[in-house]
Amino acid sequence: MSKVKTPIVILNFKTYLESSGEKALELAKTLESVSYESGITMAVAPQTADIFRINDETNIPILAQHIDPISPGGHTGSNLLECLVEAGINGTLINHSEIQMKLADIDKIIKGSKSRDIFSVVCTNNIESSRAAATLNPEFVAVEPPELIGSGVPVSQAEPEVVEGTVNEVKRINKNIDVLCGAGISTGDDMEAAIELGASGVLLASGIVLAKDPKEALLDLVSKV
Amino acid sequence: MSKVKTPIVILNFKTYLESSGEKALELAKTLESVSYESGITMAVAPQTADIFRINDETNIPILAQHIDPISPGGHTGSNLLECLVEAGINGTLINHSEIQMKLADIDKIIKGSKSRDIFSVVCTNNIESSRAAATLNPEFVAVEPPELIGSGVPVSQAEPEVVEGTVNEVKRINKNIDVLCGAGISTGDDMEAAIELGASGVLLASGIVLAKDPKEALLDLVSKV
Amino acid sequence: MSKVKTPIVILNFKTYLESSGEKALELAKTLESVSYESGITMAVAPQTADIFRINDETNIPILAQHIDPISPGGHTGSNLLECLVEAGINGTLINHSEIQMKLADIDKIIKGSKSRDIFSVVCTNNIESSRAAATLNPEFVAVEPPELIGSGVPVSQAEPEVVEGTVNEVKRINKNIDVLCGAGISTGDDMEAAIELGASGVLLASGIVLAKDPKEALLDLVSKV
Amino acid sequence: MSKVKTPIVILNFKTYLESSGEKALELAKTLESVSYESGITMAVAPQTADIFRINDETNIPILAQHIDPISPGGHTGSNLLECLVEAGINGTLINHSEIQMKLADIDKIIKGSKSRDIFSVVCTNNIESSRAAATLNPEFVAVEPPELIGSGVPVSQAEPEVVEGTVNEVKRINKNIDVLCGAGISTGDDMEAAIELGASGVLLASGIVLAKDPKEALLDLVSKV
Repeated sequence: MSKVKTPIVILNFKTYLESSGEKALELAKTLESVSYESGITMAVAPQTADIFRINDETNIPILAQHIDPISPGGHTGSNLLECLVEAGINGTLINHSEIQMKLADIDKIIKGSKSRDIFSVVCTNNIESSRAAATLNPEFVAVEPPELIGSGVPVSQAEPEVVEGTVNEVKRINKNIDVLCGAGISTGDDMEAAIELGASGVLLASGIVLAKDPKEALLDLVSKV
Repeated sequence: MSKVKTPIVILNFKTYLESSGEKALELAKTLESVSYESGITMAVAPQTADIFRINDETNIPILAQHIDPISPGGHTGSNLLECLVEAGINGTLINHSEIQMKLADIDKIIKGSKSRDIFSVVCTNNIESSRAAATLNPEFVAVEPPELIGSGVPVSQAEPEVVEGTVNEVKRINKNIDVLCGAGISTGDDMEAAIELGASGVLLASGIVLAKDPKEALLDLVSKV
Repeated sequence: MSKVKTPIVILNFKTYLESSGEKALELAKTLESVSYESGITMAVAPQTADIFRINDETNIPILAQHIDPISPGGHTGSNLLECLVEAGINGTLINHSEIQMKLADIDKIIKGSKSRDIFSVVCTNNIESSRAAATLNPEFVAVEPPELIGSGVPVSQAEPEVVEGTVNEVKRINKNIDVLCGAGISTGDDMEAAIELGASGVLLASGIVLAKDPKEALLDLVSKV
Repeated sequence: MSKVKTPIVILNFKTYLESSGEKALELAKTLESVSYESGITMAVAPQTADIFRINDETNIPILAQHIDPISPGGHTGSNLLECLVEAGINGTLINHSEIQMKLADIDKIIKGSKSRDIFSVVCTNNIESSRAAATLNPEFVAVEPPELIGSGVPVSQAEPEVVEGTVNEVKRINKNIDVLCGAGISTGDDMEAAIELGASGVLLASGIVLAKDPKEALLDLVSKV
């Protein structure tokens, strides 16, 4: 799987208790079932410790939340690409605002991902860094203005010019790169607005993970696509 | 399991390909079998992605290689204590020389480990930092002079005074803390020397992980205890 | 100057505009003059770029805000002990909560400071980490509960047991180490309370740096000692 | 000074004792005198503690080795742009391989530098990261393959295609950005080769700092331009 069908919904599980361990597995199954029902591609980015069993018990595409820019060897405590691939990832987030990376390391992980046929989603904070990320040729760029992350205020409505500008600049560098819209997304209106601005999908987290009824929230999310 | 029986052999899998994924599971089973045969406690510290299935398929004690000093929430890419406990850890390495921690964070992780009834092994680089670590009351202090890590030269022979001094200083702070001997350990002679210097076991990695025949190397390791 | 006379007031200039460049020099001169008037030892911890000229134009003791745990060589962008000593420091903060250090590096910088005859002030966040820091034998331990930093609520009143407990534990490890009280200190009452709890002085920042009239604030600070 | 005349020689003082304190000042004066004699622009990137007095006693352009991506406030131990500007910098290195930065922070520092009218030199490790850096519109990109830094083997001879490729890609993004050639440069032949490959100058360090006679080494460096 070097690329996935868009539009796509990627759910970042972060390190919430509501998306850890047994609950991570349940949530992944919920996404899988909504994906079947709606026909919209959905993927999960669980904690590293939960990747193996989600892969074992579901067919949903799985992303690592982070891969360390290391080669095999003496790197105690790091996340090795090869080990994550064997555990079952199909893609990876790179440079999420909560675990940002050095420029050279973003380049290294994108290249490593391509060599293992997994897709990469580089997270960025504005138009300028999105354009820079695009020159490194990941499959996706996910733009998330940091002030909106976890805010409940969707970037597609608060700063539509950031989404639109990112789409334009990224496509100008490489038209094969898809742009995702992150930060504050949680409803069907948010996702619809993102798609209309040129995004190929959304990257979201707390809006679904902490929802009273995640299945209902997911169904609403994709209701207008 | 708040404490394990000593003497103990802890094998740090680091991020070697030889101890990743399927091979991590095999290696854990090898340790488990040598532990049964020899009666010596053995524990493994695999990569995070491999914890779940090693716990699922063996009964060997498992340590995390690293836990991040976070609370549940928005910490993409981090290793959450609660998630690791659910995946199956019984203890954790803390402050390994390849992923050293801030002083306040070492304190935080030791306290968190106690609250979850898992044992903590703080890695240190010399007598002074071992004494400092001991004041934080972990179950184990593992002293590893950095220049000997991966060297094949055992600390128990190259710098016996470091092991002996660490045992004395740590026990003076808290006699219930056990000292492990790391760095360069691989043979039965090395382990025997460590025990004679007052250590309660060894923490090792490449000497076993990269051995031609890890089972034979493990049998040799514990042959003189 | 391997040690300074106590009680002592150390002012951390941090990176406020009000304590940068020309204003850093003025502020240092203000402390120098209040120190002469009051007879209380005062020292400043300015930004690295301001050390040379403060040393050139005043006689006040100067601390580095941070020293990197490096040896001379290829470490672009780092703060080298030898260079800072030549610029004029007499001591250094270590492990401030805004730039915390690994345990082994705290040990390294304390040893390096002793070798250059400058005094070290290790910042800590609670009783446990203060005790750990004390085993490394700095000249001072400055305890600052992180939740009170910049709060205006003095630790000496909000959590007197932390100050008292730190003094007891630190003195039990090494009675020659002096304890400073940080976090939220700004008035004469705060400093008086700190001294009564066994502290040998205070480490403070915004309460003075951002004061309408820093000289008046300093005079008030030492008015009850 | 928002831009400097090219060709340019930038000497990174790093943290060598040979370029610290009094010796940093002497070295800066040496560069200044060779610059006058040769007519080639020369600039220095000394340690932060030495910026003020080099600015005070010479007229040579000065770069910071690193600026932290902070705003004024509570950031103990950090290098604040405003403070460095007041100390006398005219430009800054950004993302040197020894102190690499996150993508968003590179963007932030370039923007901050422009707002203060100082020029920025972004260091990169290969063609891809050079292209990414160029999209952020610094005045210079300095490409330094990490394996050649401090090697004595000049990139202009060992990997001319990296220099040429970087010049092409950077100019394609923004033709106003100049490319510097770093890593292993020390002789007149090295600099000549760099210029012929399209570079606008060189960024160098140990080849001059540790030279027996830095003045002679500098004169040789610019002898063929």
